[in-house]
Amino acid sequence: MANLKLGVIGAGRIGKVHMATLVQSVPEADVVALADVNIAGAKSLAEQYGIPFVSADYKEIIHHTEVQAVVICSPTDTHAKYIVETAQAGKHIFCEKPVDLSLDVIQNAIDEVKKAGVKLMVGFNRRFDPNFKKVHDMVAAGKIGDPSILKITSRDPAPPAPQYIAVSGGMFLDMTIHDFDMARYIVGSEITEVYVKAAVLVDPEIGNAGDVDTAIITLTFANGALGVIDNSRKAVYGYDQRLEIFGTKGMVTADNNFPDNHRYFTEDGISGALPLNFFMDRYIEAYSNELKAFCDAIINNKPVPVGGEDGLISVAVGLAAKKSVAESRAVKLSEIIG
Amino acid sequence: MANLKLGVIGAGRIGKVHMATLVQSVPEADVVALADVNIAGAKSLAEQYGIPFVSADYKEIIHHTEVQAVVICSPTDTHAKYIVETAQAGKHIFCEKPVDLSLDVIQNAIDEVKKAGVKLMVGFNRRFDPNFKKVHDMVAAGKIGDPSILKITSRDPAPPAPQYIAVSGGMFLDMTIHDFDMARYIVGSEITEVYVKAAVLVDPEIGNAGDVDTAIITLTFANGALGVIDNSRKAVYGYDQRLEIFGTKGMVTADNNFPDNHRYFTEDGISGALPLNFFMDRYIEAYSNELKAFCDAIINNKPVPVGGEDGLISVAVGLAAKKSVAESRAVKLSEIIG
Amino acid sequence: MANLKLGVIGAGRIGKVHMATLVQSVPEADVVALADVNIAGAKSLAEQYGIPFVSADYKEIIHHTEVQAVVICSPTDTHAKYIVETAQAGKHIFCEKPVDLSLDVIQNAIDEVKKAGVKLMVGFNRRFDPNFKKVHDMVAAGKIGDPSILKITSRDPAPPAPQYIAVSGGMFLDMTIHDFDMARYIVGSEITEVYVKAAVLVDPEIGNAGDVDTAIITLTFANGALGVIDNSRKAVYGYDQRLEIFGTKGMVTADNNFPDNHRYFTEDGISGALPLNFFMDRYIEAYSNELKAFCDAIINNKPVPVGGEDGLISVAVGLAAKKSVAESRAVKLSEIIG
Amino acid sequence: MANLKLGVIGAGRIGKVHMATLVQSVPEADVVALADVNIAGAKSLAEQYGIPFVSADYKEIIHHTEVQAVVICSPTDTHAKYIVETAQAGKHIFCEKPVDLSLDVIQNAIDEVKKAGVKLMVGFNRRFDPNFKKVHDMVAAGKIGDPSILKITSRDPAPPAPQYIAVSGGMFLDMTIHDFDMARYIVGSEITEVYVKAAVLVDPEIGNAGDVDTAIITLTFANGALGVIDNSRKAVYGYDQRLEIFGTKGMVTADNNFPDNHRYFTEDGISGALPLNFFMDRYIEAYSNELKAFCDAIINNKPVPVGGEDGLISVAVGLAAKKSVAESRAVKLSEIIG
Repeated sequence: MANLKLGVIGAGRIGKVHMATLVQSVPEADVVALADVNIAGAKSLAEQYGIPFVSADYKEIIHHTEVQAVVICSPTDTHAKYIVETAQAGKHIFCEKPVDLSLDVIQNAIDEVKKAGVKLMVGFNRRFDPNFKKVHDMVAAGKIGDPSILKITSRDPAPPAPQYIAVSGGMFLDMTIHDFDMARYIVGSEITEVYVKAAVLVDPEIGNAGDVDTAIITLTFANGALGVIDNSRKAVYGYDQRLEIFGTKGMVTADNNFPDNHRYFTEDGISGALPLNFFMDRYIEAYSNELKAFCDAIINNKPVPVGGEDGLISVAVGLAAKKSVAESRAVKLSEIIG
Repeated sequence: MANLKLGVIGAGRIGKVHMATLVQSVPEADVVALADVNIAGAKSLAEQYGIPFVSADYKEIIHHTEVQAVVICSPTDTHAKYIVETAQAGKHIFCEKPVDLSLDVIQNAIDEVKKAGVKLMVGFNRRFDPNFKKVHDMVAAGKIGDPSILKITSRDPAPPAPQYIAVSGGMFLDMTIHDFDMARYIVGSEITEVYVKAAVLVDPEIGNAGDVDTAIITLTFANGALGVIDNSRKAVYGYDQRLEIFGTKGMVTADNNFPDNHRYFTEDGISGALPLNFFMDRYIEAYSNELKAFCDAIINNKPVPVGGEDGLISVAVGLAAKKSVAESRAVKLSEIIG
Repeated sequence: MANLKLGVIGAGRIGKVHMATLVQSVPEADVVALADVNIAGAKSLAEQYGIPFVSADYKEIIHHTEVQAVVICSPTDTHAKYIVETAQAGKHIFCEKPVDLSLDVIQNAIDEVKKAGVKLMVGFNRRFDPNFKKVHDMVAAGKIGDPSILKITSRDPAPPAPQYIAVSGGMFLDMTIHDFDMARYIVGSEITEVYVKAAVLVDPEIGNAGDVDTAIITLTFANGALGVIDNSRKAVYGYDQRLEIFGTKGMVTADNNFPDNHRYFTEDGISGALPLNFFMDRYIEAYSNELKAFCDAIINNKPVPVGGEDGLISVAVGLAAKKSVAESRAVKLSEIIG
Repeated sequence: MANLKLGVIGAGRIGKVHMATLVQSVPEADVVALADVNIAGAKSLAEQYGIPFVSADYKEIIHHTEVQAVVICSPTDTHAKYIVETAQAGKHIFCEKPVDLSLDVIQNAIDEVKKAGVKLMVGFNRRFDPNFKKVHDMVAAGKIGDPSILKITSRDPAPPAPQYIAVSGGMFLDMTIHDFDMARYIVGSEITEVYVKAAVLVDPEIGNAGDVDTAIITLTFANGALGVIDNSRKAVYGYDQRLEIFGTKGMVTADNNFPDNHRYFTEDGISGALPLNFFMDRYIEAYSNELKAFCDAIINNKPVPVGGEDGLISVAVGLAAKKSVAESRAVKLSEIIG
């Protein structure tokens, strides 16, 4: 089976992650081209990983003759535009989340992808974490009976910079969007209603920027299950990513990952390591599994595991969450998407 | 210091628990009298524990000349009446939760207690569980900074009988009331708002009886913290009683208790014991610590650790929860109590 | 069924433990008499627990007309003598370990017990710990197949006073004797050979007193299994009592007990409580279960679960361990007992 | 800094591991040549990883003009010979353990390496496991005070094939040799005495082949600490690799690694995943860290972290262990090496 030839757009933080993953951990991938408006950064990254073609212009990636699929790691407001152009060029697409902050824009991108007959995968990497995937697989296999209560704890080690918060779309579209996707993935049913109680408990500057940093989010699912997500922008002990799902026949839980499993016993107590603190460390296997799944879907012409609709729905849930905070009431998803 | 002489009203399930605890684990207590309308049951229990006086009439307990304090373990609808009569007899009172399902009735009982100048303690035994007390003490000592998110998981091993559900006041006043008290105790601040999403996922009969069996309850506290309780009437793996509290400087968690800590490794996996399944096993130390605290408060004339107001407020939160379900909206506590 | 009437000899540390256990936790036991040469201590303890008869003379306990069984908690060098006299008085006996430091003296006591037709139980309380009993029961039920490797970790929180060490018979007869009994109990087979590597790593004074404070003890069992005990007289993090047994079909482990199960997460790490530090706290359930088992054996005329032979063999293994250290070689049990 | 150009000898099991690791996880390494007497296997592996030069003759690797360092993954009986020839060719060497089963042969290889002024690193990969390294670093930093008791549990998931056992040098030189190296690494002191109690409890065929499959090994260290290793050739629950070290100021432990951390709660109990079962999965990070350390030592001219002497000593301890079994006594290392 020939390798998949990929072009990458974006050499920023997530672009570097995907580049390293593709080169080092996905043997069936060949990155042949890289673009970033910051050409110096792009050149440096290309040199590090031996990428033969580098450009400041994303169009040169999309239209590069060798490129079969494009990995979009540019800022959110360019995602939909690049998806559309890549689809029109007849090439497959992997796009970082969120696709866009507007449902119409996302729907249009999905329509163009469909029209072009190419594949679009959205980067909800956490589905590919071995712990969460194990929980998903056990639920899907009926091991807990009918799901009754889903609980997701998702807390960042530190809030993003204020200027980022201003353009991020807010906590629900920037951070919780991962949890919304995880909720749908684990429960195996669509979210029908969202109620959010939110607060600013981490940093008043976040509130001044019009956003919240702490939230309890109640979810209702089409299959009758209930769910709750608790978010904080700052957990001093590190990146806190856990979940549990409780059903009529049992419960499955997934815990954080740790750099090592030592335990230290002294007269002052028993202690151990903090959770892996950085999303790239925590989800290193997830990133690798995700891009392998993308390449596998393209090379072997299989459906992508996370499609454009998944990208659309998670944004819709995020918009419902924002509306719930704004109006202090439960919001039905049907108010957001038809 | 002389022992405290107690009379017990009620020889049912909880009456038996308190009797065994007082006789076997509270050296400073002497139970001198017991009453139950089921005189046969009362006699049998009195014989088992060597209680010298037994009657079918609760009044004989309250007015027994030796009795200094009365432990009320009768059905809920008698609690307030017995409190009032005991107070008027000038004796101290330990009363099982809930005091009553009506706020007015509870307030009247509190007023009578105050008028009589006696002490009233309400049986929120879980405050005396070593795990939860440890968490409370750490929070109170500032170990987690300002509380941000409280999470309580409280699931019963099996639902009560349908006939019990009909008279119980519903899940929130019967079962969740413990969690409401725990929430106030751990966070150290009053609940100001309640939002509940509830469902019938355990047994349709519970729904037919007008109650729910599964719920996600969002709490807002006066100090700004948020909280969430998840309840189920049936966890197949046993009695599930956990909590965690997350703050600006850290997090503390408390787990279930187990009958033993063995772990068993085979080619099929690693397994261990299920949580202690019965509330009396799970909270055996809590019951003992609770009654010790009551006797200590009377003997040494100290304030009781859980007073009538605590009983009142938890019922008010329960009524707010019921209203939230009925009206599908967040309910402020100020709508319930002035 | 009538209660068992007991006399207790010895009001020292372990005497107090057994007295409290019998009075508070063993409903089928009535302690009717107590003796200690320190009559003031005996009187104080008797008053605390309402014991009607108290004496400075142990003979008055043994020959007390009401006493049906005697609990011997006096110093080790009196055990065998009191056993013999109690047996000759036709009464049942519970004796603290070790029965004696001389095999001949123990054998003679066993012979007298047999002659008198009374029951003798030896106080290896750890067999009644819920964790270790669970492991024993699983091994006995064949859950791990044939036992291959037993590992016992047994470390004290602090060494005894030097003057105690001088009369204790040394670490193997004083402390490890519990582990020897546990090894036989868990593996379900006799120890046939002992090899010890010992050292003085805690306190040179212990070495000056002719004893060791740290040891690795290799055991061979009649059924072919191997075992290892590691001992230290001082674990700064508290009383460390764990074991694991590995067999052809699996492994079972038992861990320490803890005062609570809280976990505390801060930016410095994750910590939890130290193990229960004092043997009375650690083995509180074991003491209670042990004396219940003794009373049950007498009242219902069942075999005692730990007999005089068990007391004899553990001392024999201890003597083999001492010989192994003295002669730097493996010692067969057949060199010690015929 | 230019990359290090490596040649690999041996395309068998461990050769494949090192090849994959070097190509995928060690960016500073370029594998330029591969040899195996099984030329078909070598060609297939070379093609998979894009290795430009492949040969059936190891000499062509050693003398390949581009090759700066040779990774020896051939059968044990060729190791010393290849080390000597590579050293004489002036190239650096990474050699799998054990270097040889004869101390003289190893010493000669070390002498030739010294004479040639090249670097030799021996493949004790477990030193590079994050858990064990963490324990080592904490001990080395004085976190547990003076080491008193080291405990290593090392059990394989299944015994090797009988024909392998015949040529392996026996369990102590094939399997326990890793534990001997780990013991020296963790305690930070030399082993001075070994006592082994061994048995055949897994498979009589292993005994027929003159080997053992189960052992308790007591170690004495130059610094006074004691140690114990327990080995089994077959743990049905998987690869069991744990250790703990106990000292005057505390204890540190390291546990197994697991494929995920899910926990599953049902009415039958609580269960979780088995340990990672295959040495390549368990030590995947260790292999990567090990070869990075080798490349780093060569590229930056630093001492190798595990040298020829380490390879020599571990074999000497293994020979002492064999002698201990044969003669049923403790054997001093000074009886084996001067």
